[in-house]
Amino acid sequence: MESTYLDWAATAPPMQDILAKAAGIASGNYANPSSIHRDGADARRIIEKDRQTCADELNALPNQVYFTSGGSETNNIILSSLLTRKSKGSLVISGIEHASVYEPAKFIEKSGFDVKYVRAEKDGRITPDKFAAQVGKNTLMVSIMLVNNETGAVQPVSELVKRIRKIVNREGRSVHIHCDAVQAFGKLPIDVEEMGIDSLAASGHKIGAPRGAGLLYLRGQIDAVYKGGGQEGALRPGTENLFAINALVGATLAWAKHRSDWHENAVHLRALLLENMCRISGARLIDPGYIQPNARYSPYIVMVSFPPIPGEVLVRVMSDRGYSISTGSACSSRGKKELRVLEQMGIDRDFAKSAIRISTGNQTTETECASFCDILNAEVTSLRRQIRGA
Amino acid sequence: MESTYLDWAATAPPMQDILAKAAGIASGNYANPSSIHRDGADARRIIEKDRQTCADELNALPNQVYFTSGGSETNNIILSSLLTRKSKGSLVISGIEHASVYEPAKFIEKSGFDVKYVRAEKDGRITPDKFAAQVGKNTLMVSIMLVNNETGAVQPVSELVKRIRKIVNREGRSVHIHCDAVQAFGKLPIDVEEMGIDSLAASGHKIGAPRGAGLLYLRGQIDAVYKGGGQEGALRPGTENLFAINALVGATLAWAKHRSDWHENAVHLRALLLENMCRISGARLIDPGYIQPNARYSPYIVMVSFPPIPGEVLVRVMSDRGYSISTGSACSSRGKKELRVLEQMGIDRDFAKSAIRISTGNQTTETECASFCDILNAEVTSLRRQIRGA
Repeated sequence: MESTYLDWAATAPPMQDILAKAAGIASGNYANPSSIHRDGADARRIIEKDRQTCADELNALPNQVYFTSGGSETNNIILSSLLTRKSKGSLVISGIEHASVYEPAKFIEKSGFDVKYVRAEKDGRITPDKFAAQVGKNTLMVSIMLVNNETGAVQPVSELVKRIRKIVNREGRSVHIHCDAVQAFGKLPIDVEEMGIDSLAASGHKIGAPRGAGLLYLRGQIDAVYKGGGQEGALRPGTENLFAINALVGATLAWAKHRSDWHENAVHLRALLLENMCRISGARLIDPGYIQPNARYSPYIVMVSFPPIPGEVLVRVMSDRGYSISTGSACSSRGKKELRVLEQMGIDRDFAKSAIRISTGNQTTETECASFCDILNAEVTSLRRQIRGA
Repeated sequence: MESTYLDWAATAPPMQDILAKAAGIASGNYANPSSIHRDGADARRIIEKDRQTCADELNALPNQVYFTSGGSETNNIILSSLLTRKSKGSLVISGIEHASVYEPAKFIEKSGFDVKYVRAEKDGRITPDKFAAQVGKNTLMVSIMLVNNETGAVQPVSELVKRIRKIVNREGRSVHIHCDAVQAFGKLPIDVEEMGIDSLAASGHKIGAPRGAGLLYLRGQIDAVYKGGGQEGALRPGTENLFAINALVGATLAWAKHRSDWHENAVHLRALLLENMCRISGARLIDPGYIQPNARYSPYIVMVSFPPIPGEVLVRVMSDRGYSISTGSACSSRGKKELRVLEQMGIDRDFAKSAIRISTGNQTTETECASFCDILNAEVTSLRRQIRGA
């Protein structure tokens, strides 16, 4: 890969030092962690130490941390656990959730549950009151993401949790509140106690670990649909992936250590990107407030639109020029461009079809962003001329 | 790990050359294979080439091969797909299936399906006629393993498939026939067309690939419970694990290349192990025919029992002496020893409680097996004396 990589939200380049270390540990401890011989016990010990480290990072207890194969699986474990419940009820999610929450929700709906999809505002954020108003007497679960993967909008999760708890506590009920934190984990400090959530999903490969490991924080108990040898509290069957787990923990610690420095760099790059892109003729943002640096947006994800240039065309043209960006979620990139997230924010289709996402990471430089903006300017100008001329 | 590793059926030591090669490829192609830019397309191309290689190995078409996170997940995808069907019916499985088939089946039963568990004979094999007799008018799916993970018994899958097809074809119906080939894949040649099955599960880490990748062969279409970004034909959500997939393919090719040599070595080691262990006082086998070398048992898995010495005690004692073996499936080792498989064969509880499993791999040597038998002899003799004296 010789391109300038600005698609970190799809997957992050692996941290080579952490991979090498984890590979060494995994090679020296290849036994099945469920085996009762010493080799198995040694492997088990490493995983349990890694679990403790993750728990500490999240302000959770080790028995509340489960390793999965990734963020999509974690979200599925939680959402599909509704199918194991004795009685049906309602599920409330935001309409801007990632496909690994939204698609399970649609399946749960088909299975006879009442699913409510709460729209977001034009700025990409949900309104706690509007969301909480959908929580009814038969609500079993609520799912809300922490950082949206297309716009970077940080959702007011803690505030929403407080509203929901107030409603259900008053009625003497309980609702499972799940938070998909895949685009937030590592990048923002996360304290599950403070957030007051019941479960949280995170992924290793979005922060420089290899694919193969994700996290589930879970307070209390649920029953999972996928079953097997009882690994990970019977929530995730299959031999534990020590290599990927150990690297996930390594990457988690690296982000914890450098979080504020990397954040500062990302804030700077976001401002640079937005400032330069907004100077390009026809540039549009989801919201006027989007350009201001503030805590309502992750600095690592930037969305912009140049109607009427189709987002996919711009991604391909920029790819030919050596820059890797995306139209939105990679998880829906190969098929038809999914406009759901922006539609659920009330953004017009012209904007949505032309939207592109630039996402940065801990290694992204000012030079990369500046040269990207220059080439983007040239390509957008040329494409607009072609379209107008056509 | 300085021990003599004889627990290959739990997980195989990784093939370092294949891991290194796959790691290099994955590092150079870290982009999300679902991204539409060049980096993504490059990663996609590698996965599609790997898919073609797997398809060739199985005598399948590339669009019939799906990459999953492992064997347990593959089995769950197939079994739980019943929950997406519009109408309920029956599922027939053998009682000796791996936990990742048996436990999902129990959940499916709880969900209102009729599940029939077919017992095996004392030799560890199911009788095709007995199994086929359970296939009724409302049978939707059948699941049978190719090699049992505790006894190594090779199941007469092709024969069973023929019986079932004959019955259902006569009635103008169709039944999905799934085969869990996790302990067979690589070690035995597999031709899915010849077998006549609808789906098959395999795992990378059982043949020297790292954890994180499994295989699903699927003819036709099913709907999966876990959903997300539509990866792998919408059967396995989550960013594709290129590293683990590529290593799985590397290991598959290594086994294909050396299969007969390694098989011959394993047959020799099995004979050596059984001969030596049967000389130990009190040794018992599941069946008198078990000792003969023949195609009815995988040469890589050997089960023996020394009642009244508890299997777990023997595993721990041998572990202290530097030998890693197991009591049965690693997937149930950490909890209470699961006796289900042997009970479903009609084996008495004394045998079952004392059973140990020795499993070899392509790197296991005669010296390792011979010294293992010597130490086992000493330890069994000593333990029997202690028990008798108590």
